[in-house]
Parts: sequence; C-alpha cells; structure tokens
Amino acid sequence: MIACFDRAIGDFLVSKRFPANLHDAIEYAMLGGGKRLRPALAWFSSLACGGTGEDAIRAGIAVECIHAFSLVHDDLPALDNDNLRRGRPTLHIQTNEPMAILAGDAMLSLAYEAVLDQNDPGLSMALTGELATGTRAMIVGQVYDTLGGLPSEANPEEQIRLIHQNKTGALLTASCRMGAMCGGASEQQLGMITSYARAIGLQFQVVDDLLDIEGCSTEVGKAVGKDAQAGKLTYPGLLGVERSRAIVEELAQQANRALSQLAGCNDGSIEGTIEPLRAMGEKLTTRRQ
Amino acid sequence: MIACFDRAIGDFLVSKRFPANLHDAIEYAMLGGGKRLRPALAWFSSLACGGTGEDAIRAGIAVECIHAFSLVHDDLPALDNDNLRRGRPTLHIQTNEPMAILAGDAMLSLAYEAVLDQNDPGLSMALTGELATGTRAMIVGQVYDTLGGLPSEANPEEQIRLIHQNKTGALLTASCRMGAMCGGASEQQLGMITSYARAIGLQFQVVDDLLDIEGCSTEVGKAVGKDAQAGKLTYPGLLGVERSRAIVEELAQQANRALSQLAGCNDGSIEGTIEPLRAMGEKLTTRRQ
Repeated sequence: MIACFDRAIGDFLVSKRFPANLHDAIEYAMLGGGKRLRPALAWFSSLACGGTGEDAIRAGIAVECIHAFSLVHDDLPALDNDNLRRGRPTLHIQTNEPMAILAGDAMLSLAYEAVLDQNDPGLSMALTGELATGTRAMIVGQVYDTLGGLPSEANPEEQIRLIHQNKTGALLTASCRMGAMCGGASEQQLGMITSYARAIGLQFQVVDDLLDIEGCSTEVGKAVGKDAQAGKLTYPGLLGVERSRAIVEELAQQANRALSQLAGCNDGSIEGTIEPLRAMGEKLTTRRQ
Repeated sequence: MIACFDRAIGDFLVSKRFPANLHDAIEYAMLGGGKRLRPALAWFSSLACGGTGEDAIRAGIAVECIHAFSLVHDDLPALDNDNLRRGRPTLHIQTNEPMAILAGDAMLSLAYEAVLDQNDPGLSMALTGELATGTRAMIVGQVYDTLGGLPSEANPEEQIRLIHQNKTGALLTASCRMGAMCGGASEQQLGMITSYARAIGLQFQVVDDLLDIEGCSTEVGKAVGKDAQAGKLTYPGLLGVERSRAIVEELAQQANRALSQLAGCNDGSIEGTIEPLRAMGEKLTTRRQ
C-alpha cells in the first residue's frame, strides 16, 4: 500500500512540472519516510465502506500534502525551529528558509489539485470541503497551541481537548472521511467512520502525551518530558498518568464500537475489511514511539 | 463594487469562526486597503460575458485570499523582509512572524473554501482548477524570481517573461477566467477573456518595471531603481526604455483587440459591458504608481 502510494505521489509531482529546485524540495518533504498514517487511514476507510482502497489514493495524496506542508512550516525557525525530522535535516536546513516557506505553500495548494476529478465533480467537491475543514482546523489548532486564542470560558481539560482535536484530530478525521467517500460510503457508514476517526484522533494525541513522560522517566531528574518543560498543557500533566491511560482505553473501546457497528451494517462478506482499521487503532494505543 | 466586495469578505471570514487572534490577523491582511484589482477583474469579466458581476463575488474573494496570502508570506524576513505595506506595518510586524506564517497558510486554504458551492459542483470544480493553476504558477514565479530554477535554454527575454507570466500574470488570468466562468461564459468568450488577461497581465508588469526606473529618474545619480540595484531582470534593463514602452503599447492593443472580438460575439445589447475591462487596461497602462 505504501509503495503504491509513494509511486502515486511521485507521479503526481512529476505531472506538475515544477522547476527542478522546487520539485526536489517538495519531493524531499513528501517522500522522505514517514508512517503514511493519513493515506493509510484513507485507504482502509474506503475498504471498510465497500471501496477498493486504491480508489482513495488521490484523497491520500491530498491529506499527505497537507500533513507534509504543516511539518515544513512548523519546523521553521519562527515556529518550532527544528533542525531534524525523521533523522534528516528539516527542509529549511536542507535547502533554505525561503524555499521551505514556498515549498510548503505549494504543497498546501497541491492538496486541492489532488482531489480534482473531472469525471466526478460531486465527489471532488465533497472531498475539497472535507480537506478545507481539516486544514483550517489544523491551522487553528497550531494557533491555539503556540499563540493562544483559546476560548476563555473553556476549562483546562476542554482547552487541551480543543487543541488536540484541531491540531491533529481534524486532519485524521478528514483522512478517514475522505477515504470513506471515495469508497462510496453511505451516510450511515460515514457517520460510523467519523466516530472511529474522532476516537483514534484523540487517542493518538493522549498516547503522545504519555510517551513524552514515559520516554523520559528512566532518566533521573527528568521524570517529566519536554511538553511539561515547555509549559504545555498535556493530558497526564492535567489528569495524571492513570486517568490518561483510562482515557486511552475508553477511546479505544469507542473506536472499536464504531467499527463493530460498521461491520454490522455492512454486507457480511466485507466484515473482514474492517480489520485493518481495527489493527491501526490497536497499533496507535500500544505504540512505543 | 469594492464596498460590496469588502462586505462579502468580512462576512466570509466571520462565517469561519476563527479564534480572535487569527481572525484579526487575516482581516488585517485582507481588509487593509489595496486596489482590489483581482476581484475587479473577476467582476468585470463576468459582466463582459453576460453575467451580473456580483455572481463572481466568491471568485473575487478566492483570488484576493491568494493575493493577500502571497503578500504576507513574501513580506516575511526570510523572503523580502518588508516592514511596510500600503503605508501600514506588514503583518509579521503588526503581530509576529509565527502568526504571519499561519495566517498566510489559512488564507491560502480559505481561497479554496470560497469557491465551494454545493449547488453547482461543476462550476465549483472548474473554479478550483483555475485557482490551483494560478496559485501554483504564482509560487513558481516567486521561486524563479528569488531562488532561480529558470530553464537554462531560455534566453534573457524569455526568462523575464517566464518570471512575470508566472509571478503575477497567472493569477490575473485566473481572476478573469474565474469571473467569466461565474458569468456563464461560452468557450469562445472564455478564450477572448484569456487573451485579454494575458496581455494586461504582462503589460502590468512591464509598466511596473518602467515605473521603477522613471520613479527614480528625477534623483541625480539614481537613474536606475531598486530592481536594477538588486540585479533583477527587468524589461527596460534588458530591452531599453523605448522598446519596453513599445511592448506596453503592443500589449494594450492586443488586449483591446480581444475585447473587440468579445463585443463582436456578444449580443449588441451588452457591448457596453466590455467598457469596464477596457478602462481597467487603460488605467494599467497610464498609471503613475
């Protein structure tokens, strides 16, 4: 699946005939490893709704473009100022800062080109709408996280949930929904995929928060990780490790309930097609990095 | 027209319910003056093709979002490092650099939301395609202009034409074409609008190059302006002032020929609707700033 997707992304980029310097920068940012979590969610959500998986490949390219652009811009000196990403220099280190800004802009715009399909304007438009909603929320989440602007009436738990749901959850949800749409999901199936996506999206982030603590707990004097040091709101920081683990468990059950409902409403013959999404949820819960 | 458009942009932004800090940043960048050249081209291109003008308002919002995002990112310290724009502090000075990057990203994505129309998927998709093509070219033009990457086989005149056509021409063309599409243009009308747009797009830029020289010619010892000082390719720098003026004249005639053809193929009763586009072309030629 990943090889098929990487080939599709390579072909898509070539078809845009960018100047070599810009093409290389985009390719570096998009094809330099990464888990392909979002395209996989799109692919398997299509499958779970009776599609072929492969029919979601353009949706996968689109969400990966958005994800890759957001990493490139977030790594910039003015934002997180990160020099390394996936063990390689970040794009502004590898090229330069102007190129990282412009290549990020190009990737954002490319995402919308990826979902254009002359043969199915209705689907194209639905995908564009999902992509826009997910992207807007992701940017809002980054603003909340780094520049403030959270609603003052929200309590701390609501605030951290708002950050997570926007910053990472919305694009994961868009990935699943777009995949499902490509697979021809009914409204009912789409609702179940959405419940699944929202649960694993938040779960992904709470696990991240837990790993930030647990990854450091073996080092004396560094029982608390970089999130806490940076004064960031985290689930374990706010609710404790035990309660956070319980939340992860609740969210996993919620995701699995949504998948069981989806299997129930599907033709029995495609129940097995739910399995990849269940496995992905499981992996997100038990991951160690 | 501009007041109507500014109201529409204000309403559109409010409908997205951004956090206040991000909303204010986007509003500052989008509603802080400016000639509204692109929305006006969209409006008048609709009118010239039998539309109402007002039917192109969402296209106008979209192209203005792209234009405004490009100014915000181009002004960043890593790119042009400009502190002033339209007599006011640039966005990263008014707020901060992270906000300018994120607000720019949000505006780029918003452009695609602006052209989404549930009631007409076919038109939405066509507009999205135009917007994507124009935006991609604009970014390529900025890369050519600031980071290189021009085809080595192009001679200097072809190179400068490539920079201009991409950096400013493509979005001006998209503005006209999108407006025409909103006005229900036939393929034939669309072709004429495109010829008009390409001519005034290049003309706009050659006039810019000329103004850069002429604006400085009264100051002794500064006969050549900042483009030449920056070592940038310009039309007068390459072909001389006389030849550049002749090119402006040729392009103006080309634009007017396209409009005459458009008037010829239109119902006589709407010939007058060509006038605003003719006046805009005229204004671009004779402008002093």
